[in-house]
Amino acid sequence: MSATILDGKALAQKTEQELSRRVAQLKEVSRERTPILATILVGDDPASATYVKMKGNACRRIGMDSLQVELPSSTTTEELLAKIHELNENPDVHGILLQHPVPHQIDERACFDAIALEKDVDGVTCLGFGRMAMGEEAYGCATPKGIMRLLEAYDVELEGKHAVVVGRSPILGKPMAMMLLNANATVTICHSRTQNLPEIIKGADVIVGAVGKPEFIRADWIKDGAVVVDAGYHPGGIGDIELGPLMDRASAVTPVPGGVGPMTINTLIYQSVDSGERKLGKG
Amino acid sequence: MSATILDGKALAQKTEQELSRRVAQLKEVSRERTPILATILVGDDPASATYVKMKGNACRRIGMDSLQVELPSSTTTEELLAKIHELNENPDVHGILLQHPVPHQIDERACFDAIALEKDVDGVTCLGFGRMAMGEEAYGCATPKGIMRLLEAYDVELEGKHAVVVGRSPILGKPMAMMLLNANATVTICHSRTQNLPEIIKGADVIVGAVGKPEFIRADWIKDGAVVVDAGYHPGGIGDIELGPLMDRASAVTPVPGGVGPMTINTLIYQSVDSGERKLGKG
Repeated sequence: MSATILDGKALAQKTEQELSRRVAQLKEVSRERTPILATILVGDDPASATYVKMKGNACRRIGMDSLQVELPSSTTTEELLAKIHELNENPDVHGILLQHPVPHQIDERACFDAIALEKDVDGVTCLGFGRMAMGEEAYGCATPKGIMRLLEAYDVELEGKHAVVVGRSPILGKPMAMMLLNANATVTICHSRTQNLPEIIKGADVIVGAVGKPEFIRADWIKDGAVVVDAGYHPGGIGDIELGPLMDRASAVTPVPGGVGPMTINTLIYQSVDSGERKLGKG
Repeated sequence: MSATILDGKALAQKTEQELSRRVAQLKEVSRERTPILATILVGDDPASATYVKMKGNACRRIGMDSLQVELPSSTTTEELLAKIHELNENPDVHGILLQHPVPHQIDERACFDAIALEKDVDGVTCLGFGRMAMGEEAYGCATPKGIMRLLEAYDVELEGKHAVVVGRSPILGKPMAMMLLNANATVTICHSRTQNLPEIIKGADVIVGAVGKPEFIRADWIKDGAVVVDAGYHPGGIGDIELGPLMDRASAVTPVPGGVGPMTINTLIYQSVDSGERKLGKG
């Protein structure tokens, strides 16, 4: 039996068509205005620059605008906070993305948390996380929310299933665990201090790899029929999970690349369009 | 081998002595001012009235003042929000406790979340939860934070241990899971939709019962040597866990009553004193 491929690339493309229609409709009812995502890039890290560019491109593909803010690597916390407050106040900006990571001298958490809740379309604030965890309205953190959207698109059942999340980062493992819990899965959160990781993973109906180490999670730790979600990406198209042997015996697998990756940016623009609709009116 | 009794009553009493000294010291340096906890009771539920009274008594025992606000059961969300805003603005109030539950017509979540972060000494806001979960400074939710304080007082090792939390309520299961995770435990969150609950509990080094059903968690589901924390309380002094048979073979047990219960109120006043010190100065 061959695993179902959870094709994030295809779902993202399909969603972009729907988002294009929504943006076009919004233009009609709002005198040609579109949702605008402000992207903030601090410093000159080439990978970060590439990510920001990809996000701007995704906005353009669906007819949205992006406002690209670039700040020097010497930027202070106060300067970045001032810029975020300015964007919070700007009525033309519907979403704010602060590209992670920022240079070391900046208090990244303070800057994330300065983003207004209704513009936190990347889902990075503590307030948004807390609200999401408690079942209140809030934009979800982009990568885990993208994973949830992907699982939902393929009707993957989560209720009562045992989901094991490996990793506990603020923008992946922790929100992922809370989203799976709110979808009625039983959730285990593992991390670098976990003992008997293979044994715990053996019990997983759904496994999410979010450790940031190439193929750290071995295929033979995973039981037949599991749903395998790989949120990692490493040079050469390798994820956090040894996916090869699972293609025959998992029930579903997110490929690397083309699984979780495209859903992250897609969720960012999806939530930006939602925020734009709330401000500009749905027609 | 007899289980260590995690004696919350004794720890609470010992902590009250320390808190009394801190309050007395604060009075000295602040012209006889003390930390003040505002308690809000809405309606005439006798159990809630008793809890609020117990909290007021605990304040008095350590020399703190409490400001008791009582509102009729017909109170609207807007009226309660107005009262909370007033207490937020009142510089003499250092902590705010809104007694749960409030009457049905009130949006309890909105009212909880209206409490200013620095006065959220009961740890009920979404923002406080999110900050705690992300490792930022925030008062912990009183019951799970009380449990963490109890485990710490008895040097219970959590790092790398498998902790299973049964229950996922906003003020118990969810914050408990995040606190245990931040203490480097591997954490599993179970709930009413969990399948194979006995089997999952069998793997627990630390088990926290927070389901609200008398002795729902059976002793024979729990392995020898586990640390057993019972956050339930039912008439007749029964908890959520069948504790009797565990007294011989668990490594540690919170008794019911006298385990978790006293730590909840103790944590509330502990955090109120902390808030008072921050405002009135530590001398």
